[in-house]
Amino acid sequence: MRPHTLGVIGLGAIGGSLARQAKRAGIPKVVGWSPDTAERSAAAREGAVDDAPARASDVAGAVDLLILAAPPAANLDLLDALVPQLRPGALATDVSSVKRPIVARATAGRFGARFAGSHPLAGTHRRGFEASRAELFRGAVVYVTPVENGETAAREIAHFWQTVLEAQPVIIDAARHDTQVGLASHLPQAIASLLARVLAERLPPGATLGPGARDVTRLAASDARLWTEIFLMNRDVLLPELRALREPLGELEGALDAGDAARVTAWLEAGARWRRAIDG
Amino acid sequence: MRPHTLGVIGLGAIGGSLARQAKRAGIPKVVGWSPDTAERSAAAREGAVDDAPARASDVAGAVDLLILAAPPAANLDLLDALVPQLRPGALATDVSSVKRPIVARATAGRFGARFAGSHPLAGTHRRGFEASRAELFRGAVVYVTPVENGETAAREIAHFWQTVLEAQPVIIDAARHDTQVGLASHLPQAIASLLARVLAERLPPGATLGPGARDVTRLAASDARLWTEIFLMNRDVLLPELRALREPLGELEGALDAGDAARVTAWLEAGARWRRAIDG
Repeated sequence: MRPHTLGVIGLGAIGGSLARQAKRAGIPKVVGWSPDTAERSAAAREGAVDDAPARASDVAGAVDLLILAAPPAANLDLLDALVPQLRPGALATDVSSVKRPIVARATAGRFGARFAGSHPLAGTHRRGFEASRAELFRGAVVYVTPVENGETAAREIAHFWQTVLEAQPVIIDAARHDTQVGLASHLPQAIASLLARVLAERLPPGATLGPGARDVTRLAASDARLWTEIFLMNRDVLLPELRALREPLGELEGALDAGDAARVTAWLEAGARWRRAIDG
Repeated sequence: MRPHTLGVIGLGAIGGSLARQAKRAGIPKVVGWSPDTAERSAAAREGAVDDAPARASDVAGAVDLLILAAPPAANLDLLDALVPQLRPGALATDVSSVKRPIVARATAGRFGARFAGSHPLAGTHRRGFEASRAELFRGAVVYVTPVENGETAAREIAHFWQTVLEAQPVIIDAARHDTQVGLASHLPQAIASLLARVLAERLPPGATLGPGARDVTRLAASDARLWTEIFLMNRDVLLPELRALREPLGELEGALDAGDAARVTAWLEAGARWRRAIDG
Protein backbone atom coordinates (compact mmCIF):
# COMPACT_ATOMS: atom_id res chain seq x y z
CA MET A 1 0.00 0.00 0.00
CA ARG A 2 0.97 3.61 -0.57
CA PRO A 3 -1.02 5.77 1.89
CA HIS A 4 -2.36 9.17 0.92
CA THR A 5 -2.38 10.11 4.60
CA LEU A 6 0.14 8.57 7.00
CA GLY A 7 -0.14 8.82 10.79
CA VAL A 8 2.84 8.48 13.11
CA ILE A 9 2.28 8.14 16.86
CA GLY A 10 5.48 9.06 18.68
CA LEU A 11 7.89 11.54 17.11
CA GLY A 12 11.18 10.40 18.61
CA ALA A 13 14.23 9.18 16.71
CA ILE A 14 12.25 6.43 14.92
CA GLY A 15 8.86 8.12 14.50
CA GLY A 16 10.49 11.40 13.50
CA SER A 17 12.64 9.63 10.91
CA LEU A 18 9.58 7.82 9.54
CA ALA A 19 7.70 11.09 9.13
CA ARG A 20 10.67 12.85 7.50
CA GLN A 21 11.38 10.04 5.06
CA ALA A 22 7.69 9.59 4.15
CA LYS A 23 7.39 13.30 3.37
CA ARG A 24 10.53 13.16 1.26
CA ALA A 25 9.10 10.12 -0.56
CA GLY A 26 6.11 12.22 -1.61
CA ILE A 27 3.40 10.98 0.77
CA PRO A 28 0.83 13.79 0.37
CA LYS A 29 -0.08 14.14 4.04
CA VAL A 30 1.81 13.04 7.15
CA VAL A 31 0.11 13.58 10.50
CA GLY A 32 2.06 13.05 13.71
CA TRP A 33 1.46 12.95 17.41
CA SER A 34 3.72 13.00 20.43
CA PRO A 35 2.83 13.42 24.12
CA ASP A 36 5.57 16.06 24.11
CA THR A 37 4.19 19.39 22.80
CA ALA A 38 7.69 20.68 22.00
CA GLU A 39 8.34 17.59 19.88
CA ARG A 40 5.06 18.13 18.00
CA SER A 41 6.00 21.76 17.32
CA ALA A 42 9.52 20.85 16.19
CA ALA A 43 8.19 18.20 13.79
CA ALA A 44 5.70 20.66 12.28
CA ARG A 45 8.27 23.47 12.10
CA GLU A 46 10.82 21.25 10.33
CA GLY A 47 8.26 19.97 7.84
CA ALA A 48 8.41 16.35 9.05
CA VAL A 49 4.63 16.44 9.49
CA ASP A 50 1.91 18.45 7.80
CA ASP A 51 -0.21 18.46 10.91
CA ALA A 52 0.34 17.60 14.58
CA PRO A 53 -3.00 17.53 16.40
CA ALA A 54 -3.16 17.53 20.20
CA ARG A 55 -4.80 14.10 20.50
CA ALA A 56 -3.61 10.74 19.19
CA SER A 57 -7.18 9.76 18.36
CA ASP A 58 -7.39 12.69 15.94
CA VAL A 59 -4.52 11.10 14.05
CA ALA A 60 -6.00 7.58 14.07
CA GLY A 61 -9.31 8.68 12.57
CA ALA A 62 -7.70 10.59 9.71
CA VAL A 63 -5.16 8.25 8.11
CA ASP A 64 -4.80 5.32 5.69
CA LEU A 65 -1.87 3.87 7.61
CA LEU A 66 -1.08 4.39 11.28
CA ILE A 67 2.39 3.64 12.66
CA LEU A 68 2.82 3.23 16.41
CA ALA A 69 6.32 4.50 17.16
CA ALA A 70 6.06 4.94 20.92
CA PRO A 71 8.08 2.76 23.33
CA PRO A 72 7.01 -0.93 23.30
CA ALA A 73 4.79 -0.94 26.42
CA ALA A 74 3.00 2.25 25.32
CA ASN A 75 2.45 0.75 21.86
CA LEU A 76 0.50 -2.11 23.44
CA ASP A 77 -2.01 0.30 24.99
CA LEU A 78 -2.07 2.51 21.89
CA LEU A 79 -2.93 -0.55 19.80
CA ASP A 80 -6.09 -1.24 21.82
CA ALA A 81 -7.04 2.42 21.94
CA LEU A 82 -6.39 3.42 18.34
CA VAL A 83 -7.01 0.47 16.00
CA PRO A 84 -10.79 0.55 16.67
CA GLN A 85 -10.72 4.22 15.58
CA LEU A 86 -9.19 3.55 12.17
CA ARG A 87 -11.34 4.28 9.12
CA PRO A 88 -12.60 1.25 7.13
CA GLY A 89 -9.73 -0.11 5.01
CA ALA A 90 -7.04 1.69 6.99
CA LEU A 91 -4.13 -0.35 8.36
CA ALA A 92 -1.83 -0.07 11.37
CA THR A 93 1.62 -1.29 12.34
CA ASP A 94 4.16 -0.60 15.09
CA VAL A 95 7.96 -0.52 15.32
CA SER A 96 8.63 -2.29 18.64
CA SER A 97 11.74 -4.48 18.90
CA VAL A 98 9.84 -7.38 20.53
CA LYS A 99 6.94 -8.77 18.52
CA ARG A 100 5.17 -11.51 20.51
CA PRO A 101 3.39 -9.16 22.97
CA ILE A 102 1.89 -6.84 20.36
CA VAL A 103 1.02 -9.65 17.97
CA ALA A 104 -0.70 -11.50 20.85
CA ARG A 105 -2.58 -8.33 21.79
CA ALA A 106 -3.64 -7.78 18.15
CA THR A 107 -4.71 -11.41 17.85
CA ALA A 108 -6.77 -11.08 21.04
CA GLY A 109 -8.40 -7.95 19.60
CA ARG A 110 -9.02 -9.74 16.27
CA PHE A 111 -7.09 -7.03 14.45
CA GLY A 112 -5.67 -9.45 11.84
CA ALA A 113 -7.26 -7.64 8.92
CA ARG A 114 -5.97 -4.26 10.08
CA PHE A 115 -2.62 -4.78 11.81
CA ALA A 116 0.77 -6.43 11.36
CA GLY A 117 3.82 -5.80 13.54
CA SER A 118 7.00 -4.25 12.15
CA HIS A 119 10.54 -4.00 13.44
CA PRO A 120 12.98 -1.93 11.40
CA LEU A 121 16.63 -2.88 12.03
CA ALA A 122 17.58 0.75 11.90
CA GLY A 123 17.99 2.52 15.15
CA THR A 124 20.24 5.02 16.77
CA HIS A 125 21.51 5.22 20.33
CA ARG A 126 20.35 8.85 20.33
CA ARG A 127 16.91 9.88 21.51
CA GLY A 128 14.08 12.21 20.59
CA PHE A 129 12.98 14.04 17.46
CA GLU A 130 16.32 15.84 17.26
CA ALA A 131 17.96 12.46 16.53
CA SER A 132 15.63 11.73 13.59
CA ARG A 133 16.85 11.75 10.00
CA ALA A 134 15.18 11.19 6.66
CA GLU A 135 17.34 8.34 5.33
CA LEU A 136 17.26 6.05 8.37
CA PHE A 137 15.29 3.22 6.78
CA ARG A 138 16.77 3.17 3.27
CA GLY A 139 18.25 -0.29 2.70
CA ALA A 140 17.43 -1.44 6.24
CA VAL A 141 15.92 -4.86 6.92
CA VAL A 142 12.41 -4.50 8.38
CA TYR A 143 10.80 -7.56 9.97
CA VAL A 144 7.03 -7.75 9.46
CA THR A 145 5.14 -10.13 11.77
CA PRO A 146 1.58 -11.16 10.84
CA VAL A 147 -1.25 -11.47 13.35
CA GLU A 148 -3.56 -14.52 13.22
CA ASN A 149 -5.44 -14.32 9.90
CA GLY A 150 -3.38 -11.28 9.03
CA GLU A 151 -1.29 -12.39 6.06
CA THR A 152 -2.90 -9.90 3.69
CA ALA A 153 -2.32 -6.94 6.03
CA ALA A 154 1.29 -8.09 6.54
CA ARG A 155 1.90 -8.13 2.79
CA GLU A 156 0.42 -4.63 2.44
CA ILE A 157 2.59 -3.29 5.24
CA ALA A 158 5.72 -5.01 3.86
CA HIS A 159 4.93 -3.34 0.54
CA PHE A 160 4.72 0.05 2.27
CA TRP A 161 8.18 -0.38 3.83
CA GLN A 162 9.61 -1.44 0.50
CA THR A 163 8.10 1.12 -1.83
CA VAL A 164 7.77 4.20 0.35
CA LEU A 165 10.78 3.84 2.67
CA GLU A 166 13.06 1.81 0.36
CA ALA A 167 13.61 -0.74 3.13
CA GLN A 168 13.93 -4.51 2.77
CA PRO A 169 10.90 -6.15 4.41
CA VAL A 170 11.12 -9.76 5.66
CA ILE A 171 7.86 -11.42 6.75
CA ILE A 172 8.53 -13.64 9.77
CA ASP A 173 6.63 -15.30 12.61
CA ALA A 174 6.68 -13.21 15.82
CA ALA A 175 8.16 -16.00 17.98
CA ARG A 176 10.94 -16.73 15.50
CA HIS A 177 11.58 -12.98 15.27
CA ASP A 178 11.95 -12.61 19.04
CA THR A 179 14.37 -15.54 19.30
CA GLN A 180 16.51 -14.26 16.46
CA VAL A 181 16.52 -10.64 17.55
CA GLY A 182 17.15 -11.63 21.18
CA LEU A 183 20.44 -12.98 19.92
CA ALA A 184 21.24 -10.52 17.11
CA SER A 185 20.18 -7.29 18.83
CA HIS A 186 19.22 -7.61 22.51
CA LEU A 187 22.30 -9.63 23.49
CA PRO A 188 24.67 -7.12 21.74
CA GLN A 189 22.91 -4.28 23.60
CA ALA A 190 23.35 -6.10 26.92
CA ILE A 191 27.02 -6.78 26.18
CA ALA A 192 27.76 -3.20 25.16
CA SER A 193 26.09 -2.01 28.36
CA LEU A 194 27.96 -4.58 30.44
CA LEU A 195 31.31 -3.36 29.13
CA ALA A 196 30.34 0.30 29.56
CA ARG A 197 29.25 -0.41 33.13
CA VAL A 198 32.61 -2.02 33.93
CA LEU A 199 34.60 0.77 32.25
CA ALA A 200 32.50 3.44 33.98
CA GLU A 201 33.41 1.93 37.33
CA ARG A 202 37.04 1.00 36.76
CA LEU A 203 38.65 3.18 34.11
CA PRO A 204 40.72 5.99 35.64
CA PRO A 205 39.59 9.54 34.82
CA GLY A 206 41.36 10.87 31.75
CA ALA A 207 41.88 7.40 30.24
CA THR A 208 41.18 7.44 26.53
CA LEU A 209 39.09 5.04 24.47
CA GLY A 210 40.37 4.10 21.03
CA PRO A 211 38.02 3.90 18.04
CA GLY A 212 37.50 0.15 18.53
CA ALA A 213 36.39 0.45 22.16
CA ARG A 214 34.12 3.34 21.16
CA ASP A 215 32.44 1.04 18.65
CA VAL A 216 31.98 -1.78 21.16
CA THR A 217 30.37 0.52 23.73
CA ARG A 218 28.41 2.88 21.43
CA LEU A 219 25.07 1.10 21.99
CA ALA A 220 25.44 1.53 25.75
CA ALA A 221 24.43 5.20 25.33
CA SER A 222 20.94 4.07 24.29
CA ASP A 223 17.81 4.99 26.22
CA ALA A 224 17.89 2.87 29.40
CA ARG A 225 14.14 2.90 29.97
CA LEU A 226 13.37 1.85 26.40
CA TRP A 227 15.83 -1.04 26.66
CA THR A 228 14.45 -2.06 30.04
CA GLU A 229 11.07 -2.56 28.36
CA ILE A 230 12.64 -4.53 25.52
CA PHE A 231 14.75 -6.73 27.82
CA LEU A 232 11.80 -7.52 30.09
CA MET A 233 9.46 -8.27 27.17
CA ASN A 234 11.99 -10.72 25.72
CA ARG A 235 13.60 -11.99 28.90
CA ASP A 236 12.68 -15.64 28.32
CA VAL A 237 14.99 -15.45 25.27
CA LEU A 238 17.62 -13.04 26.62
CA LEU A 239 18.24 -14.59 30.06
CA PRO A 240 19.39 -17.99 28.77
CA GLU A 241 21.59 -16.22 26.19
CA LEU A 242 23.22 -14.16 28.93
CA ARG A 243 23.77 -17.24 31.09
CA ALA A 244 25.27 -19.09 28.13
CA LEU A 245 28.05 -16.46 27.84
CA ARG A 246 29.88 -18.09 30.75
CA GLU A 247 30.91 -21.10 28.72
CA PRO A 248 32.85 -19.34 25.90
CA LEU A 249 34.14 -16.81 28.44
CA GLY A 250 35.50 -19.66 30.52
CA GLU A 251 37.13 -21.18 27.43
CA LEU A 252 39.08 -17.98 26.76
CA GLU A 253 40.09 -17.69 30.40
CA GLY A 254 41.27 -21.30 30.40
CA ALA A 255 43.37 -20.81 27.27
CA LEU A 256 44.92 -17.59 28.65
CA ASP A 257 45.55 -19.20 32.02
CA ALA A 258 47.35 -22.08 30.28
CA GLY A 259 49.30 -19.63 28.09
CA ASP A 260 48.08 -21.66 25.11
CA ALA A 261 48.51 -19.41 22.06
CA ALA A 262 46.98 -21.90 19.63
CA ARG A 263 43.82 -22.20 21.74
CA VAL A 264 43.51 -18.41 22.13
CA THR A 265 43.93 -17.94 18.37
CA ALA A 266 41.35 -20.63 17.58
CA TRP A 267 38.93 -19.00 20.03
CA LEU A 268 39.38 -15.60 18.38
CA GLU A 269 39.28 -17.00 14.82
CA ALA A 270 35.74 -18.39 15.15
CA GLY A 271 34.30 -14.92 15.64
CA ALA A 272 36.77 -13.26 13.26
CA ARG A 273 35.79 -15.43 10.29
CA TRP A 274 32.11 -14.87 10.97
CA ARG A 275 32.48 -11.08 11.41
CA ARG A 276 34.60 -10.65 8.27
CA ALA A 277 31.91 -12.45 6.26
CA ILE A 278 29.28 -9.96 7.50
CA ASP A 279 30.91 -7.01 5.80
CA GLY A 280 31.34 -9.17 2.70
CA MET B 1 62.59 15.50 16.91
CA ARG B 2 61.81 15.78 13.22
CA PRO B 3 63.77 13.08 11.36
CA HIS B 4 65.31 13.68 7.96
CA THR B 5 65.21 9.95 7.33
CA LEU B 6 62.51 7.80 8.96
CA GLY B 7 62.61 4.01 9.03
CA VAL B 8 59.53 1.84 9.41
CA ILE B 9 59.88 -1.90 10.09
CA GLY B 10 56.67 -3.66 9.19
CA LEU B 11 54.43 -2.22 6.46
CA GLY B 12 51.03 -3.48 7.56
CA ALA B 13 48.02 -1.34 8.48
CA ILE B 14 49.96 0.58 11.16
CA GLY B 15 53.44 0.72 9.61
CA GLY B 16 52.02 1.50 6.17
CA SER B 17 49.90 4.32 7.60
CA LEU B 18 52.93 5.71 9.46
CA ALA B 19 54.98 5.77 6.25
CA ARG B 20 52.18 7.36 4.22
CA GLN B 21 51.46 10.07 6.78
CA ALA B 22 55.16 10.86 7.33
CA LYS B 23 55.67 11.32 3.58
CA ARG B 24 52.62 13.55 3.38
CA ALA B 25 53.99 15.57 6.33
CA GLY B 26 57.10 16.29 4.31
CA ILE B 27 59.65 13.93 5.87
CA PRO B 28 62.35 13.98 3.16
CA LYS B 29 63.11 10.28 3.16
CA VAL B 30 61.04 7.32 4.43
CA VAL B 31 62.60 3.87 4.25
CA GLY B 32 60.49 0.81 4.96
CA TRP B 33 60.90 -2.92 5.40
CA SER B 34 58.51 -5.82 5.50
CA PRO B 35 59.25 -9.54 5.45
CA ASP B 36 56.62 -9.67 2.69
CA THR B 37 58.20 -8.71 -0.67
CA ALA B 38 54.82 -7.89 -2.20
CA GLU B 39 54.12 -5.47 0.67
CA ARG B 40 57.51 -3.77 0.13
CA SER B 41 56.77 -3.37 -3.58
CA ALA B 42 53.26 -2.03 -2.95
CA ALA B 43 54.58 0.53 -0.44
CA ALA B 44 57.25 1.72 -2.91
CA ARG B 45 54.82 1.77 -5.84
CA GLU B 46 52.25 3.82 -3.92
CA GLY B 47 54.84 6.31 -2.73
CA ALA B 48 54.49 5.43 0.97
CA VAL B 49 58.25 4.81 1.09
CA ASP B 50 61.15 6.22 -0.91
CA ASP B 51 63.13 3.04 -0.55
CA ALA B 52 62.37 -0.51 0.60
CA PRO B 53 65.61 -2.46 0.97
CA ALA B 54 65.60 -6.25 1.31
CA ARG B 55 67.09 -6.33 4.83
CA ALA B 56 65.78 -4.69 8.01
CA SER B 57 69.35 -3.91 9.08
CA ASP B 58 69.79 -1.76 5.96
CA VAL B 59 66.95 0.38 7.25
CA ALA B 60 68.26 0.61 10.83
CA GLY B 61 71.69 1.89 9.77
CA ALA B 62 70.30 4.62 7.54
CA VAL B 63 67.74 6.51 9.62
CA ASP B 64 67.35 9.19 12.32
CA LEU B 65 64.27 7.51 13.77
CA LEU B 66 63.34 3.84 13.52
CA ILE B 67 59.79 2.67 14.21
CA LEU B 68 59.17 -1.01 14.91
CA ALA B 69 55.70 -1.72 13.54
CA ALA B 70 55.80 -5.52 13.43
CA PRO B 71 53.58 -7.64 15.72
CA PRO B 72 54.48 -7.33 19.44
CA ALA B 73 56.55 -10.53 19.82
CA ALA B 74 58.53 -9.78 16.65
CA ASN B 75 59.17 -6.23 17.87
CA LEU B 76 60.92 -7.64 20.95
CA ASP B 77 63.44 -9.48 18.80
CA LEU B 78 63.76 -6.60 16.34
CA LEU B 79 64.58 -4.28 19.25
CA ASP B 80 67.60 -6.36 20.27
CA ALA B 81 68.73 -6.84 16.68
CA LEU B 82 68.29 -3.32 15.35
CA VAL B 83 68.87 -0.76 18.12
CA PRO B 84 72.61 -1.56 18.27
CA GLN B 85 72.78 -0.82 14.53
CA LEU B 86 71.37 2.72 14.84
CA ARG B 87 73.70 5.58 13.96
CA PRO B 88 74.87 7.77 16.86
CA GLY B 89 72.07 10.12 17.90
CA ALA B 90 69.38 8.10 16.13
CA LEU B 91 66.30 7.04 18.14
CA ALA B 92 63.89 4.12 18.00
CA THR B 93 60.35 3.39 19.13
CA ASP B 94 57.71 0.71 18.55
CA VAL B 95 53.92 0.62 18.30
CA SER B 96 53.02 -2.51 20.32
CA SER B 97 49.81 -2.45 22.38
CA VAL B 98 51.49 -3.90 25.49
CA LYS B 99 54.41 -1.90 26.84
CA ARG B 100 55.96 -3.70 29.82
CA PRO B 101 57.73 -6.43 27.79
CA ILE B 102 59.45 -4.11 25.31
CA VAL B 103 60.32 -1.50 27.96
CA ALA B 104 61.82 -4.28 30.13
CA ARG B 105 63.80 -5.57 27.14
CA ALA B 106 65.05 -2.05 26.34
CA THR B 107 65.97 -1.46 29.98
CA ALA B 108 67.89 -4.76 30.03
CA GLY B 109 69.72 -3.66 26.87
CA ARG B 110 70.42 -0.22 28.40
CA PHE B 111 68.68 1.42 25.44
CA GLY B 112 67.32 4.30 27.56
CA ALA B 113 69.11 6.99 25.58
CA ARG B 114 67.92 5.59 22.26
CA PHE B 115 64.46 4.05 22.77
CA ALA B 116 61.03 4.77 24.19
CA GLY B 117 57.91 2.68 23.61
CA SER B 118 54.86 4.06 21.81
CA HIS B 119 51.28 2.88 21.50
CA PRO B 120 49.01 4.84 19.14
CA LEU B 121 45.31 4.44 19.96
CA ALA B 122 44.53 4.30 16.29
CA GLY B 123 44.04 0.93 14.79
CA THR B 124 41.83 -0.80 12.34
CA HIS B 125 40.39 -4.31 12.38
CA ARG B 126 41.71 -4.65 8.81
CA ARG B 127 45.14 -6.04 8.06
CA GLY B 128 48.12 -5.46 5.81
CA PHE B 129 49.46 -2.57 3.77
CA GLU B 130 46.21 -2.39 1.81
CA ALA B 131 44.45 -1.30 5.02
CA SER B 132 46.88 1.60 5.60
CA ARG B 133 45.83 5.22 5.23
CA ALA B 134 47.62 8.52 5.59
CA GLU B 135 45.41 10.19 8.20
CA LEU B 136 45.26 7.35 10.72
CA PHE B 137 47.15 9.11 13.52
CA ARG B 138 45.84 12.64 13.20
CA GLY B 139 44.25 13.58 16.53
CA ALA B 140 44.86 10.12 18.01
CA VAL B 141 46.18 9.67 21.54
CA VAL B 142 49.62 8.04 21.47
CA TYR B 143 51.01 6.67 24.72
CA VAL B 144 54.80 7.03 25.05
CA THR B 145 56.47 4.86 27.72
CA PRO B 146 60.03 5.73 28.83
CA VAL B 147 62.73 3.16 29.48
CA GLU B 148 64.91 3.44 32.62
CA ASN B 149 66.96 6.66 32.24
CA GLY B 150 65.06 7.33 29.02
CA GLU B 151 63.06 10.49 29.79
CA THR B 152 64.89 12.56 27.18
CA ALA B 153 64.33 10.01 24.40
CA ALA B 154 60.66 9.73 25.44
CA ARG B 155 60.22 13.50 25.12
CA GLU B 156 61.86 13.48 21.68
CA ILE B 157 59.63 10.68 20.47
CA ALA B 158 56.50 12.32 21.93
CA HIS B 159 57.49 15.45 20.03
CA PHE B 160 57.78 13.42 16.81
CA TRP B 161 54.23 12.05 17.19
CA GLN B 162 52.90 15.52 17.90
CA THR B 163 54.65 17.57 15.23
CA VAL B 164 55.01 15.10 12.36
CA LEU B 165 51.88 12.95 12.78
CA GLU B 166 49.62 15.52 14.50
CA ALA B 167 48.83 13.01 17.23
CA GLN B 168 48.36 13.70 20.94
CA PRO B 169 51.24 12.08 22.84
CA VAL B 170 50.80 11.16 26.52
CA ILE B 171 53.93 10.08 28.43
CA ILE B 172 53.01 7.29 30.86
CA ASP B 173 54.72 4.54 32.85
CA ALA B 174 54.60 1.16 31.05
CA ALA B 175 52.91 -0.67 33.94
CA ARG B 176 50.21 1.96 34.32
CA HIS B 177 49.75 1.90 30.54
CA ASP B 178 49.21 -1.87 30.47
CA THR B 179 46.66 -1.77 33.30
CA GLN B 180 44.73 1.03 31.68
CA VAL B 181 44.82 -0.38 28.16
CA GLY B 182 43.98 -3.87 29.42
CA LEU B 183 40.69 -2.37 30.51
CA ALA B 184 40.14 0.25 27.78
CA SER B 185 41.26 -1.79 24.77
CA HIS B 186 42.03 -5.46 25.44
CA LEU B 187 38.83 -6.14 27.38
CA PRO B 188 36.66 -4.52 24.64
CA GLN B 189 38.44 -6.68 22.05
CA ALA B 190 37.77 -9.82 24.12
CA ILE B 191 34.11 -8.87 24.57
CA ALA B 192 33.57 -8.13 20.88
CA SER B 193 35.14 -11.51 20.05
CA LEU B 194 33.06 -13.27 22.70
CA LEU B 195 29.84 -11.92 21.22
CA ALA B 196 30.95 -12.71 17.66
CA ARG B 197 31.83 -16.25 18.72
CA VAL B 198 28.37 -16.75 20.23
CA LEU B 199 26.59 -15.25 17.22
CA ALA B 200 28.71 -17.29 14.81
CA GLU B 201 27.57 -20.45 16.55
CA ARG B 202 23.94 -19.65 17.27
CA LEU B 203 22.55 -17.13 14.79
CA PRO B 204 20.53 -18.82 12.03
CA PRO B 205 21.85 -18.35 8.48
CA GLY B 206 20.26 -15.35 6.83
CA ALA B 207 19.67 -13.51 10.12
CA THR B 208 20.55 -9.86 9.78
CA LEU B 209 22.63 -7.69 12.11
CA GLY B 210 21.49 -4.12 12.67
CA PRO B 211 23.97 -1.23 12.73
CA GLY B 212 24.31 -1.42 16.52
CA ALA B 213 25.26 -5.11 16.59
CA ARG B 214 27.70 -4.46 13.74
CA ASP B 215 29.38 -1.82 15.89
CA VAL B 216 29.61 -4.10 18.93
CA THR B 217 31.19 -6.92 16.93
CA ARG B 218 33.36 -4.92 14.48
CA LEU B 219 36.61 -5.48 16.45
CA ALA B 220 36.06 -9.24 16.33
CA ALA B 221 37.25 -9.18 12.70
CA SER B 222 40.74 -8.18 13.89
CA ASP B 223 43.82 -10.33 13.29
CA ALA B 224 43.48 -13.31 15.68
CA ARG B 225 47.21 -14.03 15.86
CA LEU B 226 48.09 -10.40 16.64
CA TRP B 227 45.51 -10.32 19.42
CA THR B 228 46.68 -13.64 20.79
CA GLU B 229 50.10 -12.06 21.31
CA ILE B 230 48.60 -9.00 22.95
CA PHE B 231 46.28 -11.01 25.24
CA LEU B 232 49.08 -13.31 26.36
CA MET B 233 51.53 -10.46 26.97
CA ASN B 234 48.96 -8.69 29.15
CA ARG B 235 47.15 -11.67 30.62
CA ASP B 236 47.95 -10.81 34.26
CA VAL B 237 45.79 -7.70 33.69
CA LEU B 238 43.21 -9.15 31.29
CA LEU B 239 42.36 -12.40 33.08
CA PRO B 240 41.12 -10.77 36.32
CA GLU B 241 39.13 -8.27 34.24
CA LEU B 242 37.46 -11.11 32.33
CA ARG B 243 36.67 -12.98 35.53
CA ALA B 244 35.23 -9.80 37.07
CA LEU B 245 32.59 -9.64 34.30
CA ARG B 246 30.55 -12.30 36.08
CA GLU B 247 29.49 -9.97 38.87
CA PRO B 248 27.76 -7.23 36.79
CA LEU B 249 26.46 -9.92 34.42
CA GLY B 250 24.88 -11.69 37.39
CA GLU B 251 23.33 -8.40 38.55
CA LEU B 252 21.57 -7.95 35.20
CA GLU B 253 20.40 -11.56 35.20
CA GLY B 254 19.06 -11.18 38.74
CA ALA B 255 17.14 -8.01 37.87
CA LEU B 256 15.68 -9.62 34.73
CA ASP B 257 14.81 -12.80 36.60
CA ALA B 258 12.97 -10.73 39.23
CA GLY B 259 11.23 -8.69 36.50
CA ASP B 260 12.50 -5.60 38.33
CA ALA B 261 12.31 -2.74 35.81
CA ALA B 262 13.85 -0.16 38.13
CA ARG B 263 16.90 -2.35 38.76
CA VAL B 264 17.35 -3.11 35.04
CA THR B 265 17.12 0.61 34.22
CA ALA B 266 19.62 1.52 36.95
CA TRP B 267 21.99 -1.17 35.66
CA LEU B 268 21.75 0.21 32.11
CA GLU B 269 21.96 3.85 33.20
CA ALA B 270 25.43 3.50 34.77
CA GLY B 271 27.00 2.64 31.42
CA ALA B 272 24.71 4.97 29.46
CA ARG B 273 25.73 8.08 31.41
CA TRP B 274 29.40 7.19 31.07
CA ARG B 275 29.17 6.45 27.33
CA ARG B 276 27.22 9.62 26.54
CA ALA B 277 29.93 11.67 28.27
CA ILE B 278 32.60 10.10 26.04
CA ASP B 279 31.13 11.60 22.88
CA GLY B 280 30.77 14.91 24.72
